[in-house]
Amino acid sequence: MKLVTFCSSSGEPHAGAMVGRDKIVPIAHAALVLNGPELVDDVVSVAGDDDAHAWLSTLVNEAELDADALPPGLVTPLDDVALLAPVPVPNSIRDIPSFLDHMRAGFAAIGVANKTDAIGTIPAYYKGNRRTVVGPGADVVCPPYADELDFELEFGVVIVREGKDVTPEQAKALIGGYCVFNDVSARARQAEEMQLGMGPAKGKDFDTGNVLGPWLVVDEIADERELTYAVRVNGETWTEGDTSSMTWTLPELVSYCSSGETLYPGDFIAAGTVPRGCGLELGRVPNLGDVVELEVSGLGVLRNRFVSSRSGG
Amino acid sequence: MKLVTFCSSSGEPHAGAMVGRDKIVPIAHAALVLNGPELVDDVVSVAGDDDAHAWLSTLVNEAELDADALPPGLVTPLDDVALLAPVPVPNSIRDIPSFLDHMRAGFAAIGVANKTDAIGTIPAYYKGNRRTVVGPGADVVCPPYADELDFELEFGVVIVREGKDVTPEQAKALIGGYCVFNDVSARARQAEEMQLGMGPAKGKDFDTGNVLGPWLVVDEIADERELTYAVRVNGETWTEGDTSSMTWTLPELVSYCSSGETLYPGDFIAAGTVPRGCGLELGRVPNLGDVVELEVSGLGVLRNRFVSSRSGG
Repeated sequence: MKLVTFCSSSGEPHAGAMVGRDKIVPIAHAALVLNGPELVDDVVSVAGDDDAHAWLSTLVNEAELDADALPPGLVTPLDDVALLAPVPVPNSIRDIPSFLDHMRAGFAAIGVANKTDAIGTIPAYYKGNRRTVVGPGADVVCPPYADELDFELEFGVVIVREGKDVTPEQAKALIGGYCVFNDVSARARQAEEMQLGMGPAKGKDFDTGNVLGPWLVVDEIADERELTYAVRVNGETWTEGDTSSMTWTLPELVSYCSSGETLYPGDFIAAGTVPRGCGLELGRVPNLGDVVELEVSGLGVLRNRFVSSRSGG
Repeated sequence: MKLVTFCSSSGEPHAGAMVGRDKIVPIAHAALVLNGPELVDDVVSVAGDDDAHAWLSTLVNEAELDADALPPGLVTPLDDVALLAPVPVPNSIRDIPSFLDHMRAGFAAIGVANKTDAIGTIPAYYKGNRRTVVGPGADVVCPPYADELDFELEFGVVIVREGKDVTPEQAKALIGGYCVFNDVSARARQAEEMQLGMGPAKGKDFDTGNVLGPWLVVDEIADERELTYAVRVNGETWTEGDTSSMTWTLPELVSYCSSGETLYPGDFIAAGTVPRGCGLELGRVPNLGDVVELEVSGLGVLRNRFVSSRSGG
């Protein structure tokens, strides 16, 4: 099942579920009309609520099998709503490189090659700015201190149940679902920052710099190392690959983060850039004005235009 | 004026203002009883609300000049309430080393000496975990993967008005006040992480690892480079110094962060560890069980016991 956050005509965010490929059912409205369970109109809450989840799953199955199963007007064409990020304001963002070849290649490309010996000893991570998140279709705006933006194809999980000191097996119960993540980067600034040892800062911290979506896939993923992915820029395929070289799975990373530290609903934890999943590794970056599409098998396509802050286009 | 967040007997957080050294006035209750302005019972809101701020400032002045100025029972002894962090759950935490000698000494002490050439070119920073904040008097608990904890004496500002692309002069209007910050660190883990280039992570991310307080000083500080500070462990002075070597002031750092990136009420931005303001630089760390006091002139004393997660003491 795929949960979305969509914007109504009044501009308010609402939780929805995908019905097939091109329709959504608004969850709170459906629960009201169909006498469903009491629920909070929010993707994180629905994904973390067993009753709501089970009721919704049955409903979506029925609607997909029979277009007339639900009352007229309850199912809405996807084209009639604007999707936001499935979690528009996460409680936190942690990004943990689990594809170590990307880390090595990235460090080499920005001239911090001395680090590579230690890579793989423990999961290292930085934290993103949770207030800069946008969703599918949004413009990604280049900040005033940069001339170009790079993409990073990533995927991650949204925590929907609180937990602390959990094992990787227990961590699965905290995870509400998966989505694609474009960790947009202002490379020139990031390269300067990476010399300073504090991790990336303004290189990744700017409004619209974290793209999540297009939806939250709430079914458990059988094997995170068997996903395939592609990046397309203006329709041209720039990279394709698979996740077989992943060092730590997301339940393992969630467990690692939870040591001595409470994880909360709405935390987003990503597994880092996939191999050759960014322009830095490919030796080219998009132009401002280009449309960047990130696709991960089973998780969907995240499509955004990179634009200049000066012209807006 | 000093704003506090205190816990009522029912456990709910409320905003208060210090009256003298040892009493507080509960702000929302006082506004109700005294027919004051409508306000939100929250330190960030009060500090960002010009009407509430002006009314409260007059009230506190009156109460300090005349113990009978306010109705009986409205002013409460500080000892009768538990203080929380002035902002118990910040919107974000950014920590930006502005005392560059500390950065150099710290890198050398953990074996990352190669970085020191680039220090000072731009402000580098990492982001803390906003959900791990505790206040004055709280136990700081060593996480299961560490054997000891180090303190870092810092101070920072709380943003109370939204802003983006502001100059240092404009940044002053976004700042609601100053407080002391103990950026508690699990050094062994941090040292491993600093080899990995993503900045500190679990070395600083654990419940109770960010201590803010004891209150928010909402008066503008004339010169951030003229503060003095001291650290005492179990009453013994471990270090004393002044802030004259600060490279960037907090309005300058706020301006830097705001480039292309919206700052929000509740953001906390710290200026990094003061010179010789941590055990790492002093060649000694507190024992678990020790009481650590951080004092900054004008900002107060932040006192916490460091404890083991195993024994609770």
